[in-house]
Amino acid sequence: MSDIPPDLARLRSSIDNIDAALVHLLAERFKATQQVGELKAAVGLPPADPAREERQIARLRGLAHEAGLDPQFAEKFITFVIAEVIRHHEALASVEPGAAPTAGEPAATPAPSAPPVTCTTGPVDVPGGTPPRG
Amino acid sequence: MSDIPPDLARLRSSIDNIDAALVHLLAERFKATQQVGELKAAVGLPPADPAREERQIARLRGLAHEAGLDPQFAEKFITFVIAEVIRHHEALASVEPGAAPTAGEPAATPAPSAPPVTCTTGPVDVPGGTPPRG
Repeated sequence: MSDIPPDLARLRSSIDNIDAALVHLLAERFKATQQVGELKAAVGLPPADPAREERQIARLRGLAHEAGLDPQFAEKFITFVIAEVIRHHEALASVEPGAAPTAGEPAATPAPSAPPVTCTTGPVDVPGGTPPRG
Repeated sequence: MSDIPPDLARLRSSIDNIDAALVHLLAERFKATQQVGELKAAVGLPPADPAREERQIARLRGLAHEAGLDPQFAEKFITFVIAEVIRHHEALASVEPGAAPTAGEPAATPAPSAPPVTCTTGPVDVPGGTPPRG
C-alpha cells in the first residue's frame, strides 16, 4: 500500500474529497426528502410520484451528458437514490396519522409504477442496458 | 401536478439543485477514476483494490454518521459507485497495452472480495431495516 505511484495517491486524495462532498450532499438531500415524506404523509399524497421521477431522470440524464458523465449511470444513480427515498416515505405513510386511507398498505407494497431498486452483491448485470425512461 | 403544496414545490426545487450538484461531482469523480484506471492499466495494477475499498467504506460510514446520513445507505452508495468504476477499469485493463499479464481475465471475473452491486427492480430488502438517521 505504501508503494503506490505518486500520481495514484494524488488522484485518490481528490476522490476522497469528492466522496466526502457527495456524502454531505446526500445527507442534505435526505433531510429535504424527509420533509417531503412528512408533508406527503400529512396531506395523504402517495409516497411515489412516477411523473416527477420521470422528469428528474430526464433532467439528470441531460445534465450528465453536458458534464461528461455517462447518462445511463446518472439514471442508475438517481433511481438508486429515489428507491431509498420512497422506502422512507412509505415508512412515514404507514405511521403518520394523516396518511392515505389504507394506511399500512403502501408500506407493504411498493407503488407499482415505481418499483424500488434492490441492490445485492453479485456480478453486475445490466441486461441490454437500462431501458431509458425519458 | 400544478396543485402541489407550495412547501413541496420549494423542497423539490432544493432537491433538484442538490441533484445537479451530485451529478457534477460524480462527473468529476469519474474523470479522476478514469485517470486512475489508465494509470493502473499502464503499470499493471489490478482494477480492484479491496483494501482501499474497505478504507473508503469505513471512512464514508463515519462521515455519513456525522452528517446525519444513514451509514448503511452511504455504504450502499459507495459500493454502487465503486462497482461502476471497477467495470470501467476492467474495460481499460483489457485494452491497455501495459495491462496485467493475464489481460482479459480481470475483465471477465470481478475481484472476489469486492463484489459489485447489482441493482434490479423489485421489493426492497435491506436486511435488518434501515435505522432512522439522526
